[in-house]
Amino acid sequence: MTPQRKARIEAIAACRQPDLTVFMERVHKPHNVSAVLRTCDAVGIMRAHAVPAGGTLPKLNHTSGGAQRWIELVRHRDSAEGLKALKQQGFRLYAAHFSEQAIDFRTPDYTKPTAIVLGTEKFGVSDETATLVDEHIAIPMHGMAQSLNVSVATALVLYEAERQRRGAGMYEPRSLAEEPWKSLATDWIQR
Amino acid sequence: MTPQRKARIEAIAACRQPDLTVFMERVHKPHNVSAVLRTCDAVGIMRAHAVPAGGTLPKLNHTSGGAQRWIELVRHRDSAEGLKALKQQGFRLYAAHFSEQAIDFRTPDYTKPTAIVLGTEKFGVSDETATLVDEHIAIPMHGMAQSLNVSVATALVLYEAERQRRGAGMYEPRSLAEEPWKSLATDWIQR
Ligand SMILES: C[S@@+](CC[C@H](N)C(=O)[O-])C[C@H]1O[C@@H](n2cnc3c(N)ncnc32)[C@H](O)[C@@H]1O
Ligand SMILES: C[S@@+](CC[C@H](N)C(=O)[O-])C[C@H]1O[C@@H](n2cnc3c(N)ncnc32)[C@H](O)[C@@H]1O
Repeated sequence: MTPQRKARIEAIAACRQPDLTVFMERVHKPHNVSAVLRTCDAVGIMRAHAVPAGGTLPKLNHTSGGAQRWIELVRHRDSAEGLKALKQQGFRLYAAHFSEQAIDFRTPDYTKPTAIVLGTEKFGVSDETATLVDEHIAIPMHGMAQSLNVSVATALVLYEAERQRRGAGMYEPRSLAEEPWKSLATDWIQR
Repeated sequence: MTPQRKARIEAIAACRQPDLTVFMERVHKPHNVSAVLRTCDAVGIMRAHAVPAGGTLPKLNHTSGGAQRWIELVRHRDSAEGLKALKQQGFRLYAAHFSEQAIDFRTPDYTKPTAIVLGTEKFGVSDETATLVDEHIAIPMHGMAQSLNVSVATALVLYEAERQRRGAGMYEPRSLAEEPWKSLATDWIQR
């Protein structure tokens, strides 16, 4: 490994955002899961969460530039258990979900510990999950179709978080504490 | 058709944005083209442009909720010809393209006539196209992967345009002129 590559890896590990995450509820198309993880990497998410559709996660393709290599993906048996764990860790849960009570996705303060919950391609967020989260957020739709692709919706919310966090200086000079930063960088360098 | 459905169609046709468009340069995966068109519909694009990869456009799947039904897709033989036509129509051309000269994608004024140029999955925007456009725009990347999925990148730029245009009142009460509005609504109602 060149010193340049090592420095690059250390700099990227340094701006990981441990208090930003996504929770995919039974998203089942591999290209969608891949695109979500690729965007997670781009905004500095360290660890993503999923309830796999049908028990196993789809096999990921490689077009995502291998972004999933740099993200830890935690599997949960069901949404109730997974969401409870995130709440206990202090995350505020936002379901991307078009409902009567949904607020515009640009309203929340995403500089606070934030988990974005996404629904499955055909049916969206489950009723149970809709009641378990803190808030529903919606992306405005001006057209004939009723929803966006799930990886597109994820990216729009995550980049609103990125905009807010960048403005708040959360990507520099280093977001991650010394300890987790060193161990993450060491782990990446060894891969 | 119920009167409610007719009124909904008329209202949606009324906020189409004739001066906002995308130009896909050889985007070849059907799920990417579908996701792009679905987002185009959501932000009110009337007509999208593409240079098909290998001469023909990929067959679109139906998971996009049929959004492509509500968008006209204009095919161009090559980028030079297509981009020239857009320039003549008064569009400012922004290539989503990571280059030395790229500016942050949130900087431009997208309330002006705007065309967003996207590159092909593997190789990005061609060298020729990079020189033909007015500006390069880039979405900040904080991770290990070098680029986002193309439909994700498209959506991030288009929703920045949506944010600006909504703020400028361009979605209400009606953006489209009387004539094109009536003919578009009539066309949609007859489908
Ligand atoms: C294709 S959509 C599901 C559509 C489903 N028919 C429904 O009614 O929810 C998949 C997921 O993408 C997210 N999504 C798509 N469009 C959205 C929008 N405009 N606002 C918020 N979330 C959206 C949601 O998390 C949704 O569960
Ligand atoms: C998967 S990328 C192509 C990657 C290619 N290796 C390159 O170097 O351009 C496909 C298209 O998505 C758009 N894109 C992806 N990530 C982007 C970013 N961070 N900023 C601007 N455009 C991006 C560009 O239009 C690009 O041509």
